[in-house]
Amino acid sequence: MRQYETFELRFTGKEPAAEYADIPLCAEFACGSEKKNVKGFYDGEGVYKVRFLPEKPGVYTWKVTGAVNTEGTQICEAADSRHHGLVKAVDTHFEFEDGKLFVPFGTTVYALAHQDDALVEQTLSTLKTAPFNKVRMCVFPKDYDYNHNEPPYYAFEKREDGSWDTSRPCLAFWHRFEKILDRITDMGIQVDLILFHPYDRWGFDTMSRADNLRYLSFLLRRLSAKPGIWWSLANEYDLSRGKTISDWEEIEEFVAENDPYGHLLSCHNCFCFWDAGRRNITHASIQTKGLTEIPRWIAKYKKPVIIDECCYEGNLPHFWGSISAQEMVCRFWRCVASGAYCTHGETFLSDDEVLWWARGGVLKGESPERIAFLRGITESLPGPLTPFSNAGLLTLAQMDSEEMEAALLEIPEEMHSFVRSIAGSIRRMETDDRTAHIAGEHEWAAHAGEEAYLWFNDRQCFGEQTLPLPEDKHYRVELIDVWNMTRTVLEEDACGRTKLRLPGKEGLAVLATGII
Amino acid sequence: MRQYETFELRFTGKEPAAEYADIPLCAEFACGSEKKNVKGFYDGEGVYKVRFLPEKPGVYTWKVTGAVNTEGTQICEAADSRHHGLVKAVDTHFEFEDGKLFVPFGTTVYALAHQDDALVEQTLSTLKTAPFNKVRMCVFPKDYDYNHNEPPYYAFEKREDGSWDTSRPCLAFWHRFEKILDRITDMGIQVDLILFHPYDRWGFDTMSRADNLRYLSFLLRRLSAKPGIWWSLANEYDLSRGKTISDWEEIEEFVAENDPYGHLLSCHNCFCFWDAGRRNITHASIQTKGLTEIPRWIAKYKKPVIIDECCYEGNLPHFWGSISAQEMVCRFWRCVASGAYCTHGETFLSDDEVLWWARGGVLKGESPERIAFLRGITESLPGPLTPFSNAGLLTLAQMDSEEMEAALLEIPEEMHSFVRSIAGSIRRMETDDRTAHIAGEHEWAAHAGEEAYLWFNDRQCFGEQTLPLPEDKHYRVELIDVWNMTRTVLEEDACGRTKLRLPGKEGLAVLATGII
Repeated sequence: MRQYETFELRFTGKEPAAEYADIPLCAEFACGSEKKNVKGFYDGEGVYKVRFLPEKPGVYTWKVTGAVNTEGTQICEAADSRHHGLVKAVDTHFEFEDGKLFVPFGTTVYALAHQDDALVEQTLSTLKTAPFNKVRMCVFPKDYDYNHNEPPYYAFEKREDGSWDTSRPCLAFWHRFEKILDRITDMGIQVDLILFHPYDRWGFDTMSRADNLRYLSFLLRRLSAKPGIWWSLANEYDLSRGKTISDWEEIEEFVAENDPYGHLLSCHNCFCFWDAGRRNITHASIQTKGLTEIPRWIAKYKKPVIIDECCYEGNLPHFWGSISAQEMVCRFWRCVASGAYCTHGETFLSDDEVLWWARGGVLKGESPERIAFLRGITESLPGPLTPFSNAGLLTLAQMDSEEMEAALLEIPEEMHSFVRSIAGSIRRMETDDRTAHIAGEHEWAAHAGEEAYLWFNDRQCFGEQTLPLPEDKHYRVELIDVWNMTRTVLEEDACGRTKLRLPGKEGLAVLATGII
Repeated sequence: MRQYETFELRFTGKEPAAEYADIPLCAEFACGSEKKNVKGFYDGEGVYKVRFLPEKPGVYTWKVTGAVNTEGTQICEAADSRHHGLVKAVDTHFEFEDGKLFVPFGTTVYALAHQDDALVEQTLSTLKTAPFNKVRMCVFPKDYDYNHNEPPYYAFEKREDGSWDTSRPCLAFWHRFEKILDRITDMGIQVDLILFHPYDRWGFDTMSRADNLRYLSFLLRRLSAKPGIWWSLANEYDLSRGKTISDWEEIEEFVAENDPYGHLLSCHNCFCFWDAGRRNITHASIQTKGLTEIPRWIAKYKKPVIIDECCYEGNLPHFWGSISAQEMVCRFWRCVASGAYCTHGETFLSDDEVLWWARGGVLKGESPERIAFLRGITESLPGPLTPFSNAGLLTLAQMDSEEMEAALLEIPEEMHSFVRSIAGSIRRMETDDRTAHIAGEHEWAAHAGEEAYLWFNDRQCFGEQTLPLPEDKHYRVELIDVWNMTRTVLEEDACGRTKLRLPGKEGLAVLATGII
């Protein structure tokens, strides 16, 4: 037993009589005064398993009851340098359990596990050198444009009438699926595992409430002890044909209750966001292109925000699958320079219908190289980024008179009536007009305390720019060309208001990092 | 006297005793049963003038009363081919009085008239070959970044205490100003004349209510008979230091009442839009970058929408003055492919502080050439463009159940639950989330009846695209590269659903025009 690594107990016994999935098999693991209860599962051929994830080193005693009754003791050694534990949400960023910062740079391969072995191998091989440390993928197969193949296995056996027997998980599926998951997480890539989704022709999206929970119970028994997995309740929960909002709330509660370790837990939307303010939800997993609103969402949820879908690099005849590599790269920079995180996908038309976003294979686009460049910069920062301003002009308009007076003290008196006019005018705007309007004035700016400041100038072609750096600190200021991946030092030692001359072109960022 | 051309009566008399501006000088012009009352003005050196704009040919009798008392008859000849009358709003587009379509392609030179003669000459010379047929310019001088020069003249004489005497217009100003206006309109360019604005160090923005109206009275007496002028109540009315909303409403009403011809009348915002639904307002003159909302505004106001400010091509350290030529061109295409109109401006840093947007001079940018290309295409269309869909997904969410049932009849039954889910989810979204979200899925598409269809694919890199053309008509389909200014025929004779292969790059438009 080693800290942060899955510990597995195996027992042999008789095959369960009827129910394979929701079997009575419990275990208690105790270390000092701390106790944790977990559930085991039947894994076929007379083998019962109990998995446990030790999060601290020490001496553990365990006691298994139910289908198997036995107990034992195990010494758990401290983690080696390769293992850091679960990723957890801390404030508005992510950290591993050992405190190491985790900055998500995700990609999307929805039906990764539902392809033949050769294609899965190719996908894993691509992931090995790709810049991504998170992959969004589904438990269930996918039926959609460019997604028509039958998977090698399904998660359940079928009854004679053709319906899915959720009490009999298809163990061939789960064995193969787990191997894929393990190989991905072994590469240091987090699996953002999508538990339900609407793009379905097999009936997995319209199972009964009881079937949904039995499926989740089995999945959580098998996978909860694996530290590299996140629970994504759904891809596009709101397009599900079979579930109401209260079904989703029950699913959310069930997953949270039956996960002994508190894996990251989110729910991804097509339109209306799942409320990331809910107790069980650890972070916002949002599909949107309205990236200018990110600082507002961070302030609202007080949790990390991942833009898990913002269109894909490609050339499909759909708006969501036809952004350029340049635009994909800009969207990553916009998210990062807002204190949020972004997820990639790729959708190039192909005669063999193997598109990365759904089936995997190889990456053909020009964005991954630039995402790697951004990831390198982000990981070299002294800490996580948070938005520079929470909502700018909108904040001004939302101040009460006392707050406004306080804010006016900060600016010259001759500006007061002007600022009051602006605030009054924004306040009078209809919400939809205001949102669309103010988006066009958005500044992409984030900082890591007073240690680093990042401005992504996006499509602005500033010929000059003045940085409002702290007066009492010193910074190296770099100009970053996000497409050409160059970094040019503009100032070796800047402090206070610093005016820069810039080349007046699109796609530049300015990074000020503190020097001693 | 000739139809659509300013007719001027000149009389000599004694200089007015005290009040120069609001003098008692009226005239009635009658043609058959139609009568129009206009007011005259004192123009210095004992000269009184009455101007009239005949909008129909025929025999006119006129009678002047007040400071001058006389009458006469005049034959008004039909318009020559150079004159088309006032531009009027018709539905959601513009036409001259003779029915000729007017498609605005505006530019911005706020303080054009407040520069020295050499610079004014250079500006007019630039306008002569530029692609613009409308210019936004101010009566009052401008004080702002890169706008520090004193003008040659001011609109009023000063009192001994240094305050402006609005009862004594500075005739040297008005003579010079009118000459500039006439030279611009003689080039076929409409003057969108800005009557007030907030960027002021002289006090024109904070004059009394009485001074504002006296100024307007004099201006309208002088300029109303000139057909090439539009009234823009303000640039950024909402940032005025001196006027409340009810002051603006009074100004709007005064201008409308004292303009005998009904020139185009709008009011330009910084934040909260002036309500273009108001009776006196002929069209929306909007500053915004939220162009995805245009179809909604067109549907709301049922009047033409001009995006009169959407940032300027340039390299200033301000978001509003630093978009690339590519982005400026795209914004024009977005507006046009939404059934709206767009206005240009240019702001390149310059040692002499002569920036086109405020002071004129020469154009340095790369967008005007491409705007000319777009203007050529637009003017070759068989009629004005209107948005293809009014608000797309939003419309779906706003349907009542009866409208929804009717809409569902149009689509296959297996899609019904999916569409209901989408509608329900959009309906549940907060307005700000929804606006930002749906903007990212916007399709820029407009049509001229069934005669022409235009899609601007903007940053989408479609590798294929299917056009839903009418089944019973035939079209030539062209691919337009908006930056490289090329037009390539993709289909010589298309009808019904037409699938195109496209090169999968940004900045392309598809135009289908009806063929016999």
